[in-house]
Amino acid sequence: MVDCILIGVAGGSGSGKTTIAHNLVKVFSDEEAVLVEQDAYYRELEDLSLEERAKVNFDHPSSIEFSLMKKHLENLKNSIAIERPIYNFKTHSRDDKKLKINPSKIIIVEGILIFSIKEIRDLFDIKIFVDTDADEMLLRRIERDISERGRSFQTVKEQYLKTVKPMYLEFCEPTKRYADIIIPRGGENTVAINMVISNLKGHLKK
Amino acid sequence: MVDCILIGVAGGSGSGKTTIAHNLVKVFSDEEAVLVEQDAYYRELEDLSLEERAKVNFDHPSSIEFSLMKKHLENLKNSIAIERPIYNFKTHSRDDKKLKINPSKIIIVEGILIFSIKEIRDLFDIKIFVDTDADEMLLRRIERDISERGRSFQTVKEQYLKTVKPMYLEFCEPTKRYADIIIPRGGENTVAINMVISNLKGHLKK
Repeated sequence: MVDCILIGVAGGSGSGKTTIAHNLVKVFSDEEAVLVEQDAYYRELEDLSLEERAKVNFDHPSSIEFSLMKKHLENLKNSIAIERPIYNFKTHSRDDKKLKINPSKIIIVEGILIFSIKEIRDLFDIKIFVDTDADEMLLRRIERDISERGRSFQTVKEQYLKTVKPMYLEFCEPTKRYADIIIPRGGENTVAINMVISNLKGHLKK
Repeated sequence: MVDCILIGVAGGSGSGKTTIAHNLVKVFSDEEAVLVEQDAYYRELEDLSLEERAKVNFDHPSSIEFSLMKKHLENLKNSIAIERPIYNFKTHSRDDKKLKINPSKIIIVEGILIFSIKEIRDLFDIKIFVDTDADEMLLRRIERDISERGRSFQTVKEQYLKTVKPMYLEFCEPTKRYADIIIPRGGENTVAINMVISNLKGHLKK
């Protein structure tokens, strides 16, 4: 059996990294490729009051349980299935049910901060950073938060200036330095996406 | 026969673009891939006095005969062999002899300014920008100019501040925006180079 390959896709909120990760994984069968999303590893906040929860900085690395994510990625690399948490963004808690992810030849990992922790960064065979202009990332975020999540522009603006932007500059943008390739313009960049797909197909044939 | 694919590799002086272009082309046979270098298209300066030549800004797009380069790239795309000029950097003139380049399935084009002219930029199927930190580019340039070209540090420094840096910022760096993929760290980035190679091999098999 071919060795498994671990690919990280990082980038800011609205950069198009999720689109790219989904475009990659959908080309392959479940046996060939799986997707692991950083957002599933948000810490539970059940013990906090609503008031305390409102103060939590969801864009800071400490809000993610990276130790569990690391263990899961190591297991997948060692051909061991994992039980990925299912996070409920409304209650800020994890479901009782978990999502079983089987090991496969291609493991795609997607998230804003996946290159910020050295122990996780070092697991990747290929590190991709999706680099979209800040204004275009913001446009996508405003659109998504207003239309899909029912937020007001004022709320989006406040969160953006208070945590999204400073946390991006402090923890995400500097990890571009570790990337093997940088994909500009995000999900609409079909030339780059096709290049990565062709590379992964070549890996499967090895 | 498979369609030919045109790949541009741009980046600043000392970025590692030449190393990457050579690493790509040497994987393939002469029938499979050829390399076209922007530097071969420097304009002749035979009619200028030595004094006038010293004033020429070799880092400005006007010093390259892009119209000829464009014609040549179009010919190669249309399966027509070209006679590439051979430039003599000592006399600033073209040799009487020319280099015959046959059309092939993969045409790799390398140069600082190849994405700065829209008519040339639009010819590429894949645009790669090699993005190396300015200080590391400078270190490579100093090393090369002193050891290989016998220049003094003072001369290198003066040319760098007078033309290399301002021309890079004005004409090369802004073309990063047109790239399909950005390769950081230049020639030592084997993950990225292997990804491009694997992509090209996939193209040959089509």
